[in-house]
Amino acid sequence: MAYEALAAAMQDASVTRVDAIYVGNMLSGEISGQAHLGALVADFAGMPGIEAVKVEAACASAAAAFRLGLMGVASGYQNMVAVVGVEKMTDDVGSKLTAGLASAADADYEAVHGVTFPSLNALIMRRYMYEYGVTKEAFAPFSVNAHANGANNPNAMLRNRITVETFMRGGAVADPITLFDASPMADGAAAAIICPAAMAREYSSSPIRVAASAMATDTLSVHDRKDPLWLQAAQDSAQLVYRQARIGPAEIDFFELHDAFTIMAALSLEACGFAERGQGTRLALEGEIALNGKLPICTQGGLKSRGHPVGATGLYQVVEAAQQLRGQAGPNQVASPRWGMTQNIGGSGATIVTHILTNDEG
Amino acid sequence: MAYEALAAAMQDASVTRVDAIYVGNMLSGEISGQAHLGALVADFAGMPGIEAVKVEAACASAAAAFRLGLMGVASGYQNMVAVVGVEKMTDDVGSKLTAGLASAADADYEAVHGVTFPSLNALIMRRYMYEYGVTKEAFAPFSVNAHANGANNPNAMLRNRITVETFMRGGAVADPITLFDASPMADGAAAAIICPAAMAREYSSSPIRVAASAMATDTLSVHDRKDPLWLQAAQDSAQLVYRQARIGPAEIDFFELHDAFTIMAALSLEACGFAERGQGTRLALEGEIALNGKLPICTQGGLKSRGHPVGATGLYQVVEAAQQLRGQAGPNQVASPRWGMTQNIGGSGATIVTHILTNDEG
Repeated sequence: MAYEALAAAMQDASVTRVDAIYVGNMLSGEISGQAHLGALVADFAGMPGIEAVKVEAACASAAAAFRLGLMGVASGYQNMVAVVGVEKMTDDVGSKLTAGLASAADADYEAVHGVTFPSLNALIMRRYMYEYGVTKEAFAPFSVNAHANGANNPNAMLRNRITVETFMRGGAVADPITLFDASPMADGAAAAIICPAAMAREYSSSPIRVAASAMATDTLSVHDRKDPLWLQAAQDSAQLVYRQARIGPAEIDFFELHDAFTIMAALSLEACGFAERGQGTRLALEGEIALNGKLPICTQGGLKSRGHPVGATGLYQVVEAAQQLRGQAGPNQVASPRWGMTQNIGGSGATIVTHILTNDEG
Repeated sequence: MAYEALAAAMQDASVTRVDAIYVGNMLSGEISGQAHLGALVADFAGMPGIEAVKVEAACASAAAAFRLGLMGVASGYQNMVAVVGVEKMTDDVGSKLTAGLASAADADYEAVHGVTFPSLNALIMRRYMYEYGVTKEAFAPFSVNAHANGANNPNAMLRNRITVETFMRGGAVADPITLFDASPMADGAAAAIICPAAMAREYSSSPIRVAASAMATDTLSVHDRKDPLWLQAAQDSAQLVYRQARIGPAEIDFFELHDAFTIMAALSLEACGFAERGQGTRLALEGEIALNGKLPICTQGGLKSRGHPVGATGLYQVVEAAQQLRGQAGPNQVASPRWGMTQNIGGSGATIVTHILTNDEG
């Protein structure tokens, strides 16, 4: 899977060789008994010899790898870098996978008590509903929007449209999270090629500029946070990218956010300045997150419909943002976007990586 | 463990905060059910919020993390970086650990047949002995030297001196590898602080300059190599660092090599230009690898005596090289060294990371 995504990205970028490969992946050791993915991907890609390394930051692994790839180029150590996110979750969809995913939480203080990611997110969602007087139905538009966009995406895993009624009929996962709040486990890979801006036009007629990149962390355990309803690392990384790109949330034309659960979509919108605290669902209710809305999100289906192969997701977001900015998003094209933002969340917000991409060559 | 090493490094460097933490680790997810070590270490170090990420390249994870930390600083993205290598192997010394270590090999073509790292190295060692007419006893000096140096290192795991006779009496691990060819499983952590050279004197009276850094890969599987007795990635990365530092092997004053097994020490010496092909053991037999020899190796006991906590080893090597270059290596001090080389090997040579450090501020 990594090779296929990498080969497609290299073909798109008209390159036949790269200086280094950064692999974003979370669970290959735990699920498939295969660590050492850097060397593996370099080998299978027919480039044994080149530098290659795996980067892990739970579900934010791929965006973290993308950021490290940017640094490789910015440092001058490398000129042409490939970043690949890959995850194969279906090698074990039973206890190994659930335990593997829970390893993104604090093993000694959260997972040891049987906490899984659905249950952690359920606790946060329940508190959110109580604290802000928000109903379960208020989260429906996130899921409906994701499925509507995913229906047109040939790379999406779940291409069925759903209604609010479908959403409300979803079976319980971890109350109040039901089936349509939660993104599906998936196999998948995505890749991008990075080079210095000054070189990009030699390789592509439509290069995309990374205008800003930031990573921030928060406490690993949710219970250690002063406010479990606030994604501090989302705010911190968003503030950094706004400053780097010299724009604010009002200039962002679309936002590929990390809707692993609908509650995360709401919290992400709030922390990044798109909605007031406790108002994240309102943006969705008012239709502003649709492709023709003020802030389209999850334009190719998001994690919910396109799928959430954990260590690959951050690169899906980057690739989807690039497609939008190149006008190659097909039926899901947002009208003339200039600035696209991506945000990849690891654990319950302990690592958050945010990028702003643009078709403005600056 | 990571925090203790990090705190000691920060104190040594007189810094109270860093911009980012790079964590080298291989098996925390597999052995301890804890992924997401970047956020964990940042949190436990009292710096939640800062950027942090885990880097994995099997047993070369720590040196890979060190190299990525160098890039972070060289890119200008970060000014003050901490790199921590950590591994806790004793949480499971049974099947999980053996399977975890084997995940550095090719899961589908090597590990699936029951291949472990001792057995892979045994195959290589047996072939080496056959091809070059080298006896088992010829490998003894590597182990004797490591134990002699480790005996004086308070951080070493096995502080007993051994003789050639002890070496020859070692019980079988995987024929021809016996007990004293193989490095011990260990828990451990080591850390280093990196900043731009121009800033270093503000923080330390004895900063060490990283004169060169390189990473190279080879086929993941040993059977895919034209010559299983040649560490191509060691040669490739060594040639790169020699060129960057504008020196050759003759200028290297000591070499912290990756003696996970004695055979790896021999192959590393050959690939890096310190011995002719098939002559790696001769250097050891002639006493040239001792502290007062032409090329001291494993000056604090190496992997064999100091211990091999896989994802931490590469940073032990960097720290030990820094101690030598600062004249702080105690009873194991090499006389007035100027150039120290470190080499960290992942898998059976599929990822090799090589650095040259110097006390010459350039």
